Amino acid sequence: MQIKPSMEKIRQDIDTLATFVDTSKPGWTRRPFTRWYVQSREWLTKQMTEIGMEVEIDAASNLIGRIPGSDPNLKPIMVGSHTDTVTGGGRFDGIIGVVAGLEIARSLKQAGITLCHPLEVVDFTAEEPSEFGISTIGSRGMVDNLSEEMLERKDPAGLVLNDAILQIGGKPSAISEEARRKGAAALYLELHIEQGPVLEQTGNKLGVVTGIVGIQRYRVVVEGSPNHAGTTPMNMRMDALTGAAQVILELESLCRETYAEPVVGTVGKLNVEPNASNVIPGRVVFDLEVRSLDTDILERIIVKLQKNSLEIADKRSLKVSFDSLSKSEPILVTSEVQNLVWESCQATAPTISLPSGAGHDANQLARITSIGMIFVPSKDGRSHCPEEWTSYEDVTLGVEALTRAVLLFDEKA
Amino acid sequence: MQIKPSMEKIRQDIDTLATFVDTSKPGWTRRPFTRWYVQSREWLTKQMTEIGMEVEIDAASNLIGRIPGSDPNLKPIMVGSHTDTVTGGGRFDGIIGVVAGLEIARSLKQAGITLCHPLEVVDFTAEEPSEFGISTIGSRGMVDNLSEEMLERKDPAGLVLNDAILQIGGKPSAISEEARRKGAAALYLELHIEQGPVLEQTGNKLGVVTGIVGIQRYRVVVEGSPNHAGTTPMNMRMDALTGAAQVILELESLCRETYAEPVVGTVGKLNVEPNASNVIPGRVVFDLEVRSLDTDILERIIVKLQKNSLEIADKRSLKVSFDSLSKSEPILVTSEVQNLVWESCQATAPTISLPSGAGHDANQLARITSIGMIFVPSKDGRSHCPEEWTSYEDVTLGVEALTRAVLLFDEKA
Repeated sequence: MQIKPSMEKIRQDIDTLATFVDTSKPGWTRRPFTRWYVQSREWLTKQMTEIGMEVEIDAASNLIGRIPGSDPNLKPIMVGSHTDTVTGGGRFDGIIGVVAGLEIARSLKQAGITLCHPLEVVDFTAEEPSEFGISTIGSRGMVDNLSEEMLERKDPAGLVLNDAILQIGGKPSAISEEARRKGAAALYLELHIEQGPVLEQTGNKLGVVTGIVGIQRYRVVVEGSPNHAGTTPMNMRMDALTGAAQVILELESLCRETYAEPVVGTVGKLNVEPNASNVIPGRVVFDLEVRSLDTDILERIIVKLQKNSLEIADKRSLKVSFDSLSKSEPILVTSEVQNLVWESCQATAPTISLPSGAGHDANQLARITSIGMIFVPSKDGRSHCPEEWTSYEDVTLGVEALTRAVLLFDEKA
Repeated sequence: MQIKPSMEKIRQDIDTLATFVDTSKPGWTRRPFTRWYVQSREWLTKQMTEIGMEVEIDAASNLIGRIPGSDPNLKPIMVGSHTDTVTGGGRFDGIIGVVAGLEIARSLKQAGITLCHPLEVVDFTAEEPSEFGISTIGSRGMVDNLSEEMLERKDPAGLVLNDAILQIGGKPSAISEEARRKGAAALYLELHIEQGPVLEQTGNKLGVVTGIVGIQRYRVVVEGSPNHAGTTPMNMRMDALTGAAQVILELESLCRETYAEPVVGTVGKLNVEPNASNVIPGRVVFDLEVRSLDTDILERIIVKLQKNSLEIADKRSLKVSFDSLSKSEPILVTSEVQNLVWESCQATAPTISLPSGAGHDANQLARITSIGMIFVPSKDGRSHCPEEWTSYEDVTLGVEALTRAVLLFDEKA
């Protein structure tokens, strides 16, 4: 059985969603809980209804369109992502995952196909980092991972998350009670833009996600002495910046080695004190992060980096400290789901396997069911910016592969 | 002929000047043109008058105390420095140079000695970087190096420099006309704290300044691409910060080589864009400076650094640019003056020769006469901070050496 998604419909849906944006902001900005977000939800509801889906807003305010399956004993296959964007974001991140769900439901209905499983298309609320300091709010709520403390947080305008969820139709008091438990879904699949350069640079159209990396973040402080840049000879300096430079290059070098799983390590944020051109830096504070599917590799890299950093600091009469800011565990896609998605992608377009370096709603869904993800190329690897771009052809290939995966899973069950 | 300065008088003078400060600011803060500055000038005038000096405020608002010499054909020996401080500064920088002048005049008078040359003790106005964006205001004015454009500059409160000079007794319209021309002084000598660690770390008490370094400053921009820290593999990155780190270490390495004259090179100010922990730095902007008595060495270092930086950038697919911000020429102390000062210092306490890594009023005076400087130790090499400290014993050794130099020069003339 083969179903071809309509590129025309996909294009229309993406372009229509791109009209519900705050035009006072750069790019395509649709922050959660705003009126543009409500407009897009109303439009999505209309689409789902027209397709013939049952539409529901759950306690955590996720928008869910449902088509019942033929076998009442089976749990739903869920397909989804999110339609909120970062400020100054693009038209594809998250959005194509929801549009994919719509198009699968639409094309199944048009082909007169009823799956054995129920099909649920979900627009998860507020996946991107929000003004409440929390990301993946809706998917957290769906799997009972949104705490009371989180619900009480306020955004800078004083709005409480609890009330924000209420305002868009959720029922925050029932989130925990109505949350889905382990086994409540048969499978969760998500189509997403890669947000990186690998598909484009390797000439592939589809990526089978092997897992979502774990992230470890540290705050590093290098302490020296803020002496006069003119009067302090080179051999009497305690320059925190040259010390930090060595540590940064050491991190890069360790992450460039070959490991069983890919690793990335980054220093993205760095501040120099006192940051005056005629004063030797007395203190440099920077945040570093490492990401991989293999936690052991990350631990080994950090241990080695700390050891080497202490040696660097010793030689330079500096002090260096590492404080753990956060550690998240990787999410692994089971080999069964990887095989299913691989088969579906391979039948559609040139495919490779790769880890996801960013988090997604799938991270949360992994608490209750098996997850799988398909990536489509991001032009120049860009995302979270107005330049974010995936051709409609490529999105359509992704939807086609996702449709195949849904059908394949449904047949085998 | 030997004259011993009084440590007790020197201590009293330093401690008294330390009472005319803005106590709402940290450390000892006496910014030029403030009421604390006017108080200290009134007190200085009183001291000069009591010693029996002729007191004058020149067109550029410098405070000058004068003792006529016995030979009417000789130009004055000038001794001086400044009494303004940086905000949050200390009790010694500049101040001991003026106190030294007072004590020399006082002890000569008490010993009944009249020099052949006139002796002038000068408190130069506003040596430190001022709110007008200019340093060494008074000494610039004295040697006709204060332009009309500078005189029209405003501080953040809207005060025009011209008016500020008027308010403390200067006559800005006459600055150029009354300025001193080449040969108008026989010699300029300045006692100053080292502001660096060399005397302390080498166990010396006095430093014969060989010259004041030239400074070249550049703004360096390293451009990469601000990609996602999770989704961009190590080998597909254009990380501006790791590139900048290599350039910074390259500068350090070049400045640590052995040259005919000491060299220092510093990156003190650096900013990362967008400076977010999960974004690979797309752009790093930093200011670098190199200082030496030998301009050729500086030129060679910068040429080599630019060449090596381009190679670093090429390998990393980055762009790097160097923009010259400023270049100042070094001031060299003549061997005659160095010998005179060396002889005076050697007769007083353990002495070494060293360049001054910072600028002084002497930079300006060099336009019209020979200059010489004596350094005394700075505890931990610190200055421009409340911790700035030189023991009264060490200041007194400096004044003793300076007195010897004045007498020696006067005898030989």
